[in-house]
Amino acid sequence: MTQQPALDFWFEFASTYSYPAALRIGALAAQRGIAVRWRPFLLGPVFKQNGWTTSPFNMYPAKGRYMWRDLSRICNAMELPFAEPPSFPQNTILAARVALIAFDEGWGEDFTAAVYRAQFGERKNIGEPETVAAIIRALGRDAGEVMNRAQSDANKLRLREQTEEAIRLGIFGAPSFVTSDGELFWGNDRLESALDWALRR
Amino acid sequence: MTQQPALDFWFEFASTYSYPAALRIGALAAQRGIAVRWRPFLLGPVFKQNGWTTSPFNMYPAKGRYMWRDLSRICNAMELPFAEPPSFPQNTILAARVALIAFDEGWGEDFTAAVYRAQFGERKNIGEPETVAAIIRALGRDAGEVMNRAQSDANKLRLREQTEEAIRLGIFGAPSFVTSDGELFWGNDRLESALDWALRR
Repeated sequence: MTQQPALDFWFEFASTYSYPAALRIGALAAQRGIAVRWRPFLLGPVFKQNGWTTSPFNMYPAKGRYMWRDLSRICNAMELPFAEPPSFPQNTILAARVALIAFDEGWGEDFTAAVYRAQFGERKNIGEPETVAAIIRALGRDAGEVMNRAQSDANKLRLREQTEEAIRLGIFGAPSFVTSDGELFWGNDRLESALDWALRR
Repeated sequence: MTQQPALDFWFEFASTYSYPAALRIGALAAQRGIAVRWRPFLLGPVFKQNGWTTSPFNMYPAKGRYMWRDLSRICNAMELPFAEPPSFPQNTILAARVALIAFDEGWGEDFTAAVYRAQFGERKNIGEPETVAAIIRALGRDAGEVMNRAQSDANKLRLREQTEEAIRLGIFGAPSFVTSDGELFWGNDRLESALDWALRR
């Protein structure tokens, strides 16, 4: 009896390159028979360890300008909507907490895609609770009820622990991919390599 | 009459991901009929603008550990020799100055490949003039004569100006690729995208 190959997908809603990764990992993994475990986490505590208080894309303007241009090319090639958001990075803690619940209940992938599209395709601010609520409602759920559970102490703790796990795994950015044997891959452009690794025996 | 498509390849000898890029760009560009202009430059002045005095791979240990592992996987897949060098980053100013001359004279690609292999495949220190001299000699040239010209004021100035040009182009890391219409791509993993862009009309 062989186990299904698996891959952990670590993403942060404020991470620009996590957008194309989140929108393509599902189909690519399914084609290869790989199970994806979606692991939302927060980059803030990771960056804080480096002494950063914002995204490196804001700290280094040349790098930031390049990133937005590069992301627009990638979205174009994937035919994904793209528009540079008015504020960056946005506060993603509520969206990440909701995502934990959504993945438990089987609507996590749709929720994640909708959050990324809103932020990087529709110039919305996902840091505003109303934006998150509208996404939840559009997926046919009771936004108030879901958001109450998302903001429970137990769920807050769960997100903190997941972020601590990311740091323990050596994760320093998003998107990151970790195979069952602990191999780490970083960046949307490493998704295919991570999937190939997950299939190795 | 149509002009041959062209791509500028900006590389720094201390840049780890420039190693696989330098070793594969020649064949990939030739297959597509694209002329490559090899542009050695120095990352030191670029990093200095960010307030960095060393490589970010040294400043952020998790990122550094990941980079060496990732580079070893890439070299493995390309069947390139790989061994983490005893010191990093190395002093690359002499090698970059020699490269300017070598590309003028048609042996730049061989020189560049040999410098990268020595540094990242054979644990040599390319900051030592004797390492550079041995590479020049192995390519059938008079090392003393070449190195004298490399260290001339005119050639030193040329490298400084080339580095300033990189900064003006918005380059913030290596390898970088710039098409004739000014489109910038950063990273070994963007080489194919840059080549595709160079072919657009």
